[in-house]
Amino acid sequence: MASSHKLKILNDPIYGFITIPSERIFNIIEHPYFQRLRRISQMGMSFLVYPGAHHTRFHHAIGCVHLMQKAVQVLRYKGVEISEAEEEALQIAILLHDIGHGPFSHAMEHSIVEGIDHERISLLFMEEMNKEFNQNLTLALQIFKGNYKRRFLYQLITSQLDMDRLDYLKRDSFYTGVAEGNINSQRLITMLNVVDDNLVIEEKGIYSVEKFLVARRLMYWQVYLHKTSLVAEQLIIRVLKRAKELVAGGVKLPCSSALAYFLDNKIGPSNFTHKTLGIFARLDDYDIISAMKDWQYEEDYVLSNLCRMIINRDLLKVKIKKKKPSREKLQKRLLELQQRMGISEKEAGYFVFSGEVTNTAYKSENDNINILHKNGKISDVAKTSDQLNLKALSKTVVKYYICYPKPKN
Amino acid sequence: MASSHKLKILNDPIYGFITIPSERIFNIIEHPYFQRLRRISQMGMSFLVYPGAHHTRFHHAIGCVHLMQKAVQVLRYKGVEISEAEEEALQIAILLHDIGHGPFSHAMEHSIVEGIDHERISLLFMEEMNKEFNQNLTLALQIFKGNYKRRFLYQLITSQLDMDRLDYLKRDSFYTGVAEGNINSQRLITMLNVVDDNLVIEEKGIYSVEKFLVARRLMYWQVYLHKTSLVAEQLIIRVLKRAKELVAGGVKLPCSSALAYFLDNKIGPSNFTHKTLGIFARLDDYDIISAMKDWQYEEDYVLSNLCRMIINRDLLKVKIKKKKPSREKLQKRLLELQQRMGISEKEAGYFVFSGEVTNTAYKSENDNINILHKNGKISDVAKTSDQLNLKALSKTVVKYYICYPKPKN
Amino acid sequence: MASSHKLKILNDPIYGFITIPSERIFNIIEHPYFQRLRRISQMGMSFLVYPGAHHTRFHHAIGCVHLMQKAVQVLRYKGVEISEAEEEALQIAILLHDIGHGPFSHAMEHSIVEGIDHERISLLFMEEMNKEFNQNLTLALQIFKGNYKRRFLYQLITSQLDMDRLDYLKRDSFYTGVAEGNINSQRLITMLNVVDDNLVIEEKGIYSVEKFLVARRLMYWQVYLHKTSLVAEQLIIRVLKRAKELVAGGVKLPCSSALAYFLDNKIGPSNFTHKTLGIFARLDDYDIISAMKDWQYEEDYVLSNLCRMIINRDLLKVKIKKKKPSREKLQKRLLELQQRMGISEKEAGYFVFSGEVTNTAYKSENDNINILHKNGKISDVAKTSDQLNLKALSKTVVKYYICYPKPKN
Amino acid sequence: MASSHKLKILNDPIYGFITIPSERIFNIIEHPYFQRLRRISQMGMSFLVYPGAHHTRFHHAIGCVHLMQKAVQVLRYKGVEISEAEEEALQIAILLHDIGHGPFSHAMEHSIVEGIDHERISLLFMEEMNKEFNQNLTLALQIFKGNYKRRFLYQLITSQLDMDRLDYLKRDSFYTGVAEGNINSQRLITMLNVVDDNLVIEEKGIYSVEKFLVARRLMYWQVYLHKTSLVAEQLIIRVLKRAKELVAGGVKLPCSSALAYFLDNKIGPSNFTHKTLGIFARLDDYDIISAMKDWQYEEDYVLSNLCRMIINRDLLKVKIKKKKPSREKLQKRLLELQQRMGISEKEAGYFVFSGEVTNTAYKSENDNINILHKNGKISDVAKTSDQLNLKALSKTVVKYYICYPKPKN
Repeated sequence: MASSHKLKILNDPIYGFITIPSERIFNIIEHPYFQRLRRISQMGMSFLVYPGAHHTRFHHAIGCVHLMQKAVQVLRYKGVEISEAEEEALQIAILLHDIGHGPFSHAMEHSIVEGIDHERISLLFMEEMNKEFNQNLTLALQIFKGNYKRRFLYQLITSQLDMDRLDYLKRDSFYTGVAEGNINSQRLITMLNVVDDNLVIEEKGIYSVEKFLVARRLMYWQVYLHKTSLVAEQLIIRVLKRAKELVAGGVKLPCSSALAYFLDNKIGPSNFTHKTLGIFARLDDYDIISAMKDWQYEEDYVLSNLCRMIINRDLLKVKIKKKKPSREKLQKRLLELQQRMGISEKEAGYFVFSGEVTNTAYKSENDNINILHKNGKISDVAKTSDQLNLKALSKTVVKYYICYPKPKN
Repeated sequence: MASSHKLKILNDPIYGFITIPSERIFNIIEHPYFQRLRRISQMGMSFLVYPGAHHTRFHHAIGCVHLMQKAVQVLRYKGVEISEAEEEALQIAILLHDIGHGPFSHAMEHSIVEGIDHERISLLFMEEMNKEFNQNLTLALQIFKGNYKRRFLYQLITSQLDMDRLDYLKRDSFYTGVAEGNINSQRLITMLNVVDDNLVIEEKGIYSVEKFLVARRLMYWQVYLHKTSLVAEQLIIRVLKRAKELVAGGVKLPCSSALAYFLDNKIGPSNFTHKTLGIFARLDDYDIISAMKDWQYEEDYVLSNLCRMIINRDLLKVKIKKKKPSREKLQKRLLELQQRMGISEKEAGYFVFSGEVTNTAYKSENDNINILHKNGKISDVAKTSDQLNLKALSKTVVKYYICYPKPKN
Repeated sequence: MASSHKLKILNDPIYGFITIPSERIFNIIEHPYFQRLRRISQMGMSFLVYPGAHHTRFHHAIGCVHLMQKAVQVLRYKGVEISEAEEEALQIAILLHDIGHGPFSHAMEHSIVEGIDHERISLLFMEEMNKEFNQNLTLALQIFKGNYKRRFLYQLITSQLDMDRLDYLKRDSFYTGVAEGNINSQRLITMLNVVDDNLVIEEKGIYSVEKFLVARRLMYWQVYLHKTSLVAEQLIIRVLKRAKELVAGGVKLPCSSALAYFLDNKIGPSNFTHKTLGIFARLDDYDIISAMKDWQYEEDYVLSNLCRMIINRDLLKVKIKKKKPSREKLQKRLLELQQRMGISEKEAGYFVFSGEVTNTAYKSENDNINILHKNGKISDVAKTSDQLNLKALSKTVVKYYICYPKPKN
Repeated sequence: MASSHKLKILNDPIYGFITIPSERIFNIIEHPYFQRLRRISQMGMSFLVYPGAHHTRFHHAIGCVHLMQKAVQVLRYKGVEISEAEEEALQIAILLHDIGHGPFSHAMEHSIVEGIDHERISLLFMEEMNKEFNQNLTLALQIFKGNYKRRFLYQLITSQLDMDRLDYLKRDSFYTGVAEGNINSQRLITMLNVVDDNLVIEEKGIYSVEKFLVARRLMYWQVYLHKTSLVAEQLIIRVLKRAKELVAGGVKLPCSSALAYFLDNKIGPSNFTHKTLGIFARLDDYDIISAMKDWQYEEDYVLSNLCRMIINRDLLKVKIKKKKPSREKLQKRLLELQQRMGISEKEAGYFVFSGEVTNTAYKSENDNINILHKNGKISDVAKTSDQLNLKALSKTVVKYYICYPKPKN
């Protein structure tokens, strides 16, 4: 009988089965830092719109490893040499590319910490884990940072067709049930090749690339920037901001010890120490949601109302417009709320606000998607397609939102 | 233009779209009691084995309403009369059938509360909501309790082929990625009919019923009773039990105010008051997981270790056997742990224990699945199939588990 | 027990189940004219590229009826009134919209018959069947011809978002396995509404429309105009043309009696009589393929070689270019073949030829897709989208092909 | 750039993409003998019940190659050594395992040829092709015939869990839309292993095996032995038998030259020569269907009526019973028809007849499915399962059918 100790296979609703490629990858997955990702939702508050969207960063990261295995297989089949060490490094790099995400990541980066993004924190985690794993993550780190000599390996991790996007667009489309956002990751990977150390797509894949970009744009407007998710995210930012204000003013708010640390201290790139990393590693969606659940019953009008809105999904009204809303309109709504509730302008500002969202389906300036023609020539996909579509998809679209309390009936 | 105010459609990865059938149903969904179900996982800790299994009781309940719409449509098409009022009552009853579930329900019922199950609590919620909704839930309640004159309506809510099972088996199979547990709810519903006020399956659906029962059994052994989910659930029971002991002994444990109430008080059927219901309504997965996250750092050896095991998915070893493990074997392991860690026998008992699980795919004693033959006769499915299968599926299977700490390397 | 006589349900790999809505529809399906569609492939010779593409016009027509049921349901739900009679007429019209297709339709229209297209023949069939069905198809005919007072009913049958396209794009994508061509028919139908007697799409469906158009374009280039299907179709045209030439010259070719009729006679709009219709109704893919199988062994160099190429899938070489191939190049290849095989220029012309193909994803001149905005305004989708995409998709793209024998090794 | 000449990838609706593993396999596929399979339906006349079931033996054979690639990959991963030569031989053997099928195979074997089955003809084709391919198919032939030393290779081609079944059950379920017949081929393959040169299934796959057998049984009763397919097949057998009788009696029937050969000659194992093989290779569904289309207009009452029934799907009435129909009943119907139509008893016997069908989901006598337990022991799956199911599935079930003309209205 053939032995198969430690051969791990995971069920995945999307790919069927995912094989964990090596014992080292398996051990990284077992690490508490990585297990934490089980408690961080991939799509933040989007489940308020799409009730199926409860998948986690844990699942996404493992899905990326699966696609990376396929990509390496395809490239090798086409004659691109990739060593065993490079392959494992690619898998580790993609597995850990998002490990620095905090709960409700985009909200966090503007409230809990300041001036430090999740990419930077991912790097800190990876360096920390590299020590624990006897420097066996060094090559992965090099590739991840873009310091490794072979550029296309980096592009498999970070580019407009990287394994990250190929998994998350597919996964988010799957779990939200927005079938039209579904992309054919399998086909795109089948079309990959390498020319002059750059990742390219073979010519016959050009319509697939276009379809991918259209799907991506659709997912942005219909899902990621859906007005309900948007307002929920804005509310969380304001909850955390208000909580910090109150704490700074001496109010004692019930919450987990990890969250308390970030409410009590102003953390930025300069003081994100080894200790901070340890506390950050204890923070996940559960700290934030639990805190909000208890804060519903706090005395502060702003904090308790914001929390109730999120917990009971009784959100602010939100409108999306092509034009920037006028200052006057906003002022009028602010004043109205102040008078109705007897609160200050600053307090009212937590419930009446505006902002903008932007979306570019294809970024053509740098890091573009290159098409490999049958005659061996390479060209930017936006200049290759037979119509104006891709040029159109390169344009940045800006929209504006305005939020305010629902009118009373 | 045709107006369509309040016409709500939800995306669902399984059914495509779900239409919320009426404004009343929509308002029930908006109620905080129902929104709470967004924070209660359908499958407890199963995500530790199946990383996709993060779907909620909220999603399941709405899925049931979808299937109920289909069932009513099919039955009416076949000439079974169902009034508008009965239809809405069916939808409300199935929507709320699980509203009494607490977090990690099965664990809860043996620790947080005692002697009161989720069906009973569902009823309390429904009665409470009936008041808020001006007695408009009365017919739903009647059907739910089995008091309504037309029996087949009750069977659509509770029987071996009810909409609850047709949704959760399909949904759990979908989110776990255990494709073999997938059942053809659409086909089974298409085969429904009513004879003498009883729900029956038309003859040509007999193999579908058999396939449904086999899938159900497979889901039990492979998913619901998977040894890792099983040990995780057992650990949560013990975490809560230990927490109650410590609290009773005067230890102050950090946790949400709602959870604190249930740790401080012994709640059973006799003292589950209106106030209790209000506090219970604030309790969800987030209270339990957050508490365990903080309790990892408590002094008590038992509590902190149990919590760490769950949070970092570094669980006890578990073995499933066809025979009951001997008392001696268990004693030996207990003693070993006591000596190794210097703890009492009682403390060691939190980490070394055994139990049994049972599974009956088809219950033939009462509430059986009836087949309607072309000649108009009715028979129990287990007596109709051309082979011994269904008789076999009616047998209860018992297995035994034993849990103990992993050996140190 | 509820009776359900003549309640017919069909399995469909795409929609799960299709319900035949009425006994009349069922009887039309049973008619030999309609049963003939079981023997006419929806995608002609595309199975030479996509081995799964063997689905028939029969299956497609029934799929359309299914979507029509959904569309009527959605529109009624939104308050659009559609009478029972109109509903059945819509179903009949869409069921029969393609009944005039001959085998390898596009090839046929340029060889077997001349100057008469399948729409015209569909009408002849429908008129004939109307007699047999006691004038009960009259309203369906009116709608089909665009003569009925309510315009949106016609648009459900024929427009850029008609049920025909919503089924065939989905179905062809499904059976070819070109997953990226998959469209979300369900969602598009859910977004339908009627304003001023015109079919419109609600605003939130705009990205779905765009995705539909991009998918459509992809299907054209990747599937319908795939170079291998294209050359196979061109070869069939030439087989039939050559056969007619030979027959006209007195050669006796083995074939079915129905095919013989069309080889012997020159049939156009002026002499397509009642009798012709009867013989046409006996013609399907089997006549053509069987004839070609036997004609492989005919003496004529041109005919036998063309047939062998198709039957054994050993086709001409084909190149697709953005520029028109030069006359000289073509002449050179022609001469080469003449000399190599010792055949005449005319004969060589059967194996060396060029042509063009065009594709417009969205036709904006007339019959455009209209978007219904939240404020009640209507606008052409191509002028609504936030980017240039849809304008781009309105441009007609022309490509050129050249075919010639494979070089000998 | 990496070169990838002759790297062929096919779209498949089921597996996404299928990679043709080598140039030799590609060349075998290109051979006219193999291309012929494009014109032989996998499921005979089942499309009369399931309109999607038009997939071909060509597609199935290529699907088998795909699964074989997966199986080899899994086994090697588990340490089972399989040489490059063995791998290719496995792929060739499974690709060609069905090449001897004629049109409507089961009907053919009782009418067109006598006493020679498709397995035998497959072998003749393979031997013929081995010559053309310079003896490079020798190892494939050895494995196919069961003469190769390593038994498990043969079991991958022919056993109760061979790649043939794993593809056709999945494929037939997919194209018919009978979703409940869907099997998890991927999972079953993942569970394969080899012990003592025998293919086994690892213990945790036991419920998957059971589910596979239940699905198989369901497919038999619901699809393969569906009464409409059954009667259509019986009618084709009778069409061919009658045609042979008429030809023997001097009647000249229009048909293809290949079919004419088999009507004129009585072909069995003793006179199935090299020349016969060549003519057989020209025979496919098109010869039979085309002939029947023309024979609708023949004078002979029996032949013309049988053909019309099939072509217009206006079949005999058929009943399936658990008990053998009585001789008297049959006689009565026979007599009735004789008198009504004024035909002889022999002629009437073409329209009134009975027979039996049998089905055994699992054959336990020989060639059983073996389970590999965690402790290394092997046992027959029917003795391993925790219930009586599999024992039940081993029982042969017999049913009886009776066919006769529909009553006149």
